[in-house]
Amino acid sequence: MDGQDAALILEQARTMVDPVLRAAIESLPGSMRRVALYHFGWEHADGSPAAGNAGKAIRPALVLTAAAALGGRREAASRAAAAVELVHNFTLLHDDVMDRDTTRRHRPTAWTVFGDADAILAGDALQALALKLLTEDPHPASATAAARLASCVIELCEGQHADTAMEKRGPGEVTLDECLAMAEAKTGALLGCACALGALYAGGSAEDVEAMDAFGREAGLAFQLIDDVIGIWGDPSRTGKPAGADLVARKKSLPVVAALASGTPAATELAELYAVPYDEAQEGALERTVLAVERAGGRDWAQLQAADRMARAIHELSRAVPDPEAAGGLLSLAEFVTRRTT
Amino acid sequence: MDGQDAALILEQARTMVDPVLRAAIESLPGSMRRVALYHFGWEHADGSPAAGNAGKAIRPALVLTAAAALGGRREAASRAAAAVELVHNFTLLHDDVMDRDTTRRHRPTAWTVFGDADAILAGDALQALALKLLTEDPHPASATAAARLASCVIELCEGQHADTAMEKRGPGEVTLDECLAMAEAKTGALLGCACALGALYAGGSAEDVEAMDAFGREAGLAFQLIDDVIGIWGDPSRTGKPAGADLVARKKSLPVVAALASGTPAATELAELYAVPYDEAQEGALERTVLAVERAGGRDWAQLQAADRMARAIHELSRAVPDPEAAGGLLSLAEFVTRRTT
Repeated sequence: MDGQDAALILEQARTMVDPVLRAAIESLPGSMRRVALYHFGWEHADGSPAAGNAGKAIRPALVLTAAAALGGRREAASRAAAAVELVHNFTLLHDDVMDRDTTRRHRPTAWTVFGDADAILAGDALQALALKLLTEDPHPASATAAARLASCVIELCEGQHADTAMEKRGPGEVTLDECLAMAEAKTGALLGCACALGALYAGGSAEDVEAMDAFGREAGLAFQLIDDVIGIWGDPSRTGKPAGADLVARKKSLPVVAALASGTPAATELAELYAVPYDEAQEGALERTVLAVERAGGRDWAQLQAADRMARAIHELSRAVPDPEAAGGLLSLAEFVTRRTT
Repeated sequence: MDGQDAALILEQARTMVDPVLRAAIESLPGSMRRVALYHFGWEHADGSPAAGNAGKAIRPALVLTAAAALGGRREAASRAAAAVELVHNFTLLHDDVMDRDTTRRHRPTAWTVFGDADAILAGDALQALALKLLTEDPHPASATAAARLASCVIELCEGQHADTAMEKRGPGEVTLDECLAMAEAKTGALLGCACALGALYAGGSAEDVEAMDAFGREAGLAFQLIDDVIGIWGDPSRTGKPAGADLVARKKSLPVVAALASGTPAATELAELYAVPYDEAQEGALERTVLAVERAGGRDWAQLQAADRMARAIHELSRAVPDPEAAGGLLSLAEFVTRRTT
């Protein structure tokens, strides 16, 4: 099973992609380089070097592993992998500005340190850098990959818009279908694109590319469902977030929307709780909310739905990569991202 | 002189590029399409159709006319022209958010109508759309053009950063060189890139492409210098802005920074005036500020500098296009954008 272990795949991806990523960011003009190096965890706010904590490299690992699964060379896809990671981080920079989020990867977000303008500009520059990396890549698939990544950016923007717009509406005004479509655009699209780019770089057929995209999308939805479960029932000592953080913020995450749509008495109770802001002075308010989501079937639904999405992902993967040995790495990655509750 | 007249060239560029631009924008998901159609003047805020007032199409006209000057077909470069216009408008959307500007092309800016988040997302989507248009273009120059446009976006971001950072500093802390470098990055870079893309699409040599870029950059600087002159001495009935608007806002425009750096008694007076916010209750305060910039030589410097930049632009153009007949269209455009004081 050498090379099939997710932790090892992720570590190898970091090792291969970080130099490309770092060189690309070092090529930026001073102001944007500084924001980007801070955001990626390579510098402290004062510009001194930091150990680096740029996330788990799941997207670059998907690009490289998808390329290898279709018989391509990992190394040949390293620029594509870096480009996907740049796009991911451009959206994080902008999302944090829009959502006024103050913490990212256990550190103050870039806009809280450098201001809105520089965080927006650094995000703009990272998007441009991603497309520049791809369009300057002499690989024959690079132009097609660049066009696909640009289309994906548009879908990510639509996902973020839907997320922002949904949070402004009342708890009863959001349907489960809307919520799933938002999660697919916001999370599934880029995981799908990462796998599709790997397939393109391996010279895969149009069918392979679409099957790989579908694999990544379905795995991405499974990931989002599990992430939403963790946002309610996750162990604070492991997640780094306070217990029930999503419920305290009255977030319309997938288990909540499923619970609200269940037509049960617990759904009515949950709707009443969600109609007013969380009040920590009220004894047991959080526990009652957690229990209402659970009794209305939100947790069970999310876990079943995640399992169903994983099954679909595996089916799509088997279309593009029938050999289980060759598909092993991608399966490990998909399992890794959805395994975090156990 | 048929086809050499700037107004005619601009009108023809609009006619050729608008359908490409419009189709690209119509392909966006609903939320971003709405913001973009509003920003381009094709829809009112309520979504009803509008006559359209998307600016003068100078950048698309430069792409098409540069291509034609080097023997290329205008039509073949229409996607590249639309891509440059999309990038320009993506930066306008984001700059307006950062600068809190409330008026653009005589209408409320997009963020005042749709909120910061949707204006940022629409800008992000327009950047992606620009790169998508180019990378999906089957033209042999499209990948090189896309990489060049992506590099240009990074330079535009740096220019906007420098502009924002400069406005926060004291009037005596900004040098003329910094101010010129900012204007080159913020305005010159995209005009240069437009001409370079035209050259690339015409199959021009590397030297032609660089000379065309330099032509556009120098013409862009001349344009910015004249624009800054208009911002102080322009006729309000023609500019649509109140007289001396840039001085009222204490803007460190090029004539102001040149005046401050002149070492004259008028420079000292100007520095004192700029040290405190404009107070309209103070009789004659604006007139005194205008006069101080003039006496310190700010107006003369800007006009001489603009003429010098135009001379350099014409020299660069003659390197790429020695035949004056072939260069006529680009000369007309360069003169058009710098002619607006007369």
